[in-house]
Amino acid sequence: MTAHFEVCARDGLARTGRLRLAHGEVATPAFMPVGTYGTVKAMTPEELEGLGAEIILGNTLHLMLRPGAAVVAKHGGLHGFMHWQRPILTDSGGFQVFSLERLRKLSEEGVHFRSPVDGAEVRLTPEDSMDVQRALRSDIAMALDECTPHPASEAQARASMERSMRWAVRSYAHYHRDGDGGPPGVLFGIVQGGMHAHLRQASLESLLRLRWPGLAVGGLAVGEPEEVRLQVLEELVPHMPADRPRYLMGVGRPEDIVAAVLRGIDMFDCVMPTRHARNGHLFTSRGTLNIRNQVHREALGPIDPECGCYTCRHYSRAYLRHLERCNEILGARLNTLHNLYFYLQLMRRLRSAIEAGQLAAFAAAFLAARRDGDEPVA
Amino acid sequence: MTAHFEVCARDGLARTGRLRLAHGEVATPAFMPVGTYGTVKAMTPEELEGLGAEIILGNTLHLMLRPGAAVVAKHGGLHGFMHWQRPILTDSGGFQVFSLERLRKLSEEGVHFRSPVDGAEVRLTPEDSMDVQRALRSDIAMALDECTPHPASEAQARASMERSMRWAVRSYAHYHRDGDGGPPGVLFGIVQGGMHAHLRQASLESLLRLRWPGLAVGGLAVGEPEEVRLQVLEELVPHMPADRPRYLMGVGRPEDIVAAVLRGIDMFDCVMPTRHARNGHLFTSRGTLNIRNQVHREALGPIDPECGCYTCRHYSRAYLRHLERCNEILGARLNTLHNLYFYLQLMRRLRSAIEAGQLAAFAAAFLAARRDGDEPVA
Repeated sequence: MTAHFEVCARDGLARTGRLRLAHGEVATPAFMPVGTYGTVKAMTPEELEGLGAEIILGNTLHLMLRPGAAVVAKHGGLHGFMHWQRPILTDSGGFQVFSLERLRKLSEEGVHFRSPVDGAEVRLTPEDSMDVQRALRSDIAMALDECTPHPASEAQARASMERSMRWAVRSYAHYHRDGDGGPPGVLFGIVQGGMHAHLRQASLESLLRLRWPGLAVGGLAVGEPEEVRLQVLEELVPHMPADRPRYLMGVGRPEDIVAAVLRGIDMFDCVMPTRHARNGHLFTSRGTLNIRNQVHREALGPIDPECGCYTCRHYSRAYLRHLERCNEILGARLNTLHNLYFYLQLMRRLRSAIEAGQLAAFAAAFLAARRDGDEPVA
Repeated sequence: MTAHFEVCARDGLARTGRLRLAHGEVATPAFMPVGTYGTVKAMTPEELEGLGAEIILGNTLHLMLRPGAAVVAKHGGLHGFMHWQRPILTDSGGFQVFSLERLRKLSEEGVHFRSPVDGAEVRLTPEDSMDVQRALRSDIAMALDECTPHPASEAQARASMERSMRWAVRSYAHYHRDGDGGPPGVLFGIVQGGMHAHLRQASLESLLRLRWPGLAVGGLAVGEPEEVRLQVLEELVPHMPADRPRYLMGVGRPEDIVAAVLRGIDMFDCVMPTRHARNGHLFTSRGTLNIRNQVHREALGPIDPECGCYTCRHYSRAYLRHLERCNEILGARLNTLHNLYFYLQLMRRLRSAIEAGQLAAFAAAFLAARRDGDEPVA
């Protein structure tokens, strides 16, 4: 099983592409809604398809703990379990396990931690992560890496990156082993190295000794200033193979996505549109509003008059504010639909702009319209 | 504005009918999903239509408190506010306010109570209830009544019923007043009288001095034994006008609905399918199961192999149990869809059985299949 990636159009460092995976094709630059526990929170698969999502992300660590890989495997994998028939990317569990802080113990073998669900002792090695991701039958699996803490000294960042590179080799070997019908999809490697350009470069060179069908940039969006993140991308991305997809993990705000596409990134994931929706933070062409604010109490208009989503076509801000105040499930649904539409529509517009050779102008107009348009939180 | 009710088929005391209202037609016997705060919890209007719901219920008291009648009226009424274009019945607020117990003070004028939302002093008289229901522009409004406590002595039940009858006259007069474009729909009266047949009869006779286009039986499903409820219905319903719809308020379990249809009732509402769904209690042709139970951990089959709903067509019990354990919104959605489908499918089957003159046989088979099929709660 190999992914086929074809670059279609270029505009500066940005490009559009088609990524062919086991469960279908993905147009890039692509945003992947996050479905932690085998569900993109509040959405059905049909709704996600209707919004134009072509690939979603599942969290290996969460699914390992609940319901367990064996239960998912009995359904033929994550697609059958959650009734989503298009591509799925799963993370390695690495980032998630590092957020457990005091619960984990790290060694060369892997990570031991206490399950936050039931306190059980759990082990996550590169081999374990590959076993679980194969059982989930993801279209794209990710190598297990150590998420370098931020800030980190050069020595810390180097040691962490070098361990991630050894784990990448073990991940690669174990993912591609025979048995159980072989690998169900493809495996991406992850560039680490903290905020240090030379470590990022060393990490990339180390990875490129193996033939990864796609490469990710990990260890960003961990609290570093925006200009530091952009500098890492500017120094790293031009050296990443142009014929393979480049995935910036865990990013980000709409502005961050635009900035990263301008610098040559093809794939994104972030909980922001779905999590913000459940907190009443709604993205619009003029900035972000908080639907809980008093100003929306009698507002008959939609969230965003320029938006064509189901929520904006049928519901007033007054109604959405009311649902929020009453803690109604429909509020979480309608808000999530809107925010995911906003992100997926942004990706469509970015692709069109690249195809038209107008990306710089589109990005400038998009950022200018949203800047300073944010509402204060009530 | 008058409702036109046409009886189509009869089978014993049961009948099918067509009820024509301002926003469309309703086939009876009908079940009305409850949409307390301007949303049937977890569902979109399109999903309700897809399930075959032809009328829903809104709660006047809740909407009065949040977001307030004025905000709803700005949307042209509850239909525009919540994006539901078919008929709506609103209760009077009476039953809800009586459940506030210590917060309320009752007088001949009406009820004064403290808002459970913000502690504000609120008044609900028959005239207030009519004003709010007119502002909501319900297809069917309900007269304000006092829900007689259970148990109640004959004297208590009589005094309570007599006050309800005086409030019914005030409700009728105020609902039918001119101004604001006149009444937006029709007003139903409510028979009270506790568990006393002669008081029920007196209440009915009192109401029939006015021309109500439909009559409800109130004050049941308040904790009385099933045989007492059925006896009240058996003594009362044959005296209710055959040419007008009969609505049994707040009932109930599937078994209760079947029993009441057999005794001549045409309309029902209950929070049971939606509330139970959110607690993981799922109705099936073989009884009720609790999806949280360990027995469903690896169950690949649907909730009910005989069910044709979206949930049963696409999701395993193992997946639904997983969503419940993770407190996922999609779980509440899929469970609610299933339970409402079960209720609305039951109503379709009851109507078909009546049309075929097979109601007794259908009811016996339905009840036998469900009896003793319930799962213990985990």
